[in-house]
Amino acid sequence: MIKIAYFDSNGTEQKKRWWQDCLTQRLGPCQLVDLITPEALDAAFALVWYPPPGRLAALDRLQLIISLGQGVDHLVSDSTLPHSARIVRLVDPDMSHALSQWVILGILDHLRNGPAYRLQAQNRVFAALDQQQTLNLSVGVYGMGAIGSVIAARLHALGFDVHGWSRTARNFSSDITAHHGPSGFAEMLAGCFVHVCILPLTQQTQDIFDAAAFARMPRGSYFINAGRGRQVVEDDLLAAVRSMHLSGACLDVFVQEPLPAAHPFWDEPSITVWPHVAAQTNPLTAADQVAAAIKAVAGGQLPAHLVDRSKGY
Amino acid sequence: MIKIAYFDSNGTEQKKRWWQDCLTQRLGPCQLVDLITPEALDAAFALVWYPPPGRLAALDRLQLIISLGQGVDHLVSDSTLPHSARIVRLVDPDMSHALSQWVILGILDHLRNGPAYRLQAQNRVFAALDQQQTLNLSVGVYGMGAIGSVIAARLHALGFDVHGWSRTARNFSSDITAHHGPSGFAEMLAGCFVHVCILPLTQQTQDIFDAAAFARMPRGSYFINAGRGRQVVEDDLLAAVRSMHLSGACLDVFVQEPLPAAHPFWDEPSITVWPHVAAQTNPLTAADQVAAAIKAVAGGQLPAHLVDRSKGY
Repeated sequence: MIKIAYFDSNGTEQKKRWWQDCLTQRLGPCQLVDLITPEALDAAFALVWYPPPGRLAALDRLQLIISLGQGVDHLVSDSTLPHSARIVRLVDPDMSHALSQWVILGILDHLRNGPAYRLQAQNRVFAALDQQQTLNLSVGVYGMGAIGSVIAARLHALGFDVHGWSRTARNFSSDITAHHGPSGFAEMLAGCFVHVCILPLTQQTQDIFDAAAFARMPRGSYFINAGRGRQVVEDDLLAAVRSMHLSGACLDVFVQEPLPAAHPFWDEPSITVWPHVAAQTNPLTAADQVAAAIKAVAGGQLPAHLVDRSKGY
Repeated sequence: MIKIAYFDSNGTEQKKRWWQDCLTQRLGPCQLVDLITPEALDAAFALVWYPPPGRLAALDRLQLIISLGQGVDHLVSDSTLPHSARIVRLVDPDMSHALSQWVILGILDHLRNGPAYRLQAQNRVFAALDQQQTLNLSVGVYGMGAIGSVIAARLHALGFDVHGWSRTARNFSSDITAHHGPSGFAEMLAGCFVHVCILPLTQQTQDIFDAAAFARMPRGSYFINAGRGRQVVEDDLLAAVRSMHLSGACLDVFVQEPLPAAHPFWDEPSITVWPHVAAQTNPLTAADQVAAAIKAVAGGQLPAHLVDRSKGY
């Protein structure tokens, strides 16, 4: 009997039963037990989202930790995490698909004056506004992993001039202009009019979009964040939008979620707030990946989408 | 001196002067004269948008009529139009680009619950809604000419299962499932969940989206019109949306434009009204094309983008 320690900070009892059913279908007899109960102490597998720090360290036989989402900052930030256990993330192809559609929606709604036209329509005004030329407009994608690459390719297909930034030099498709490292980061900031953050949260990327970064962007630039809230210094973003140095921002992630009702982002007409839904996990695809990772490790194989702890993603 | 009879039903004096300047730069000495003045009677060229019916017939030496937009229904519907004159339309690559972005914006805003999330944000509600799976969702593009083909290719790049309909059998990219003729039209209606009309207005396409067409679409389908208003029986569309057979519509064109303030489309929450701005002409690209068409005909060559009057487009 496979025992899986389970914890989902956003979960419900219903979702836990759903995981139990899905994994039984795919793995045969298995048992989901609550991570925070003594029953979990001898589990070899953990399926978790934002578990209580220190808790996974108590699992002596732990071999594999599966993050219930693409991000693993909730795991690698826990210094007590047992080094013997491998970490894998869910890399759902539907997630790249969904996230790229959200990014494109955010960009197009801004470039095509969606908010202004909706305001006109509320007042039954049928009138054209000046249309910004968008063919070959420069868009920078920060973070060229599994998701960022799909976003970049799709933006290219839509007629944008796409630039991609990664921490270290990598080969992208020839359609994308590659940048890397600190100097490449500065180049992207200065050279693009739309900036899409899809980075993992690491010590290097925390607060990476600060007043200095926004100041480097050309006046009128638009900022989109589908990475993590802590990559942005929110007060600096607010100041850049209020001073009209940036034309606005479309945000799915925030330092504090849910975004507090008193947060000034809600009141800023040029900032669009989404409730962390850019890429909701497709449960069926996710279940396939979780089962495959457990099967691989149980069979002595390496699972897919292993996290490199030294990099933090 | 080249004389060009000019008429733009939406134009301004400023725009006329702009055309005069642009064409002089490209053609050398030339003169724009108002179509409705006697001075225009010996012009060999006409540059027009919705000219008064019958007026072009008075120009004895007319060789070339250039439509100031992609649509030519405003010309071919005039039975007095001199048969000796060729008609060309503007086919602006930027127009295909702009129109495809507008279509994609309309589709994504609907599929990603844009209106519902904006309503939540107004009330500072940070909560996820169920996300419809959109990978391989069937989207049908009605009208696979210069613009429709770009739209179809870009929708395919975004992960949709794209179908294209044309009047007669044509070879599309293998990425697109081709349909044609009346039986193909019925197939597309029944097989797609998003329907994008980009057809030219002809006798065959007038009122083509009527109650019977909407009834063939699967329940919950979404309808997008960037063709012409008269292709849609507006009362039938309204009834299909109100009965919730359709999940909504995104419309850029209407039977009467500007859309009258009393029109029920304004009040329907599931219908998004845009003021005919899906593809505003890029003036510089348009000027290049107008000049090239005049040069070609003046030099005894065939201009690009000739209209086949028997087809009406």
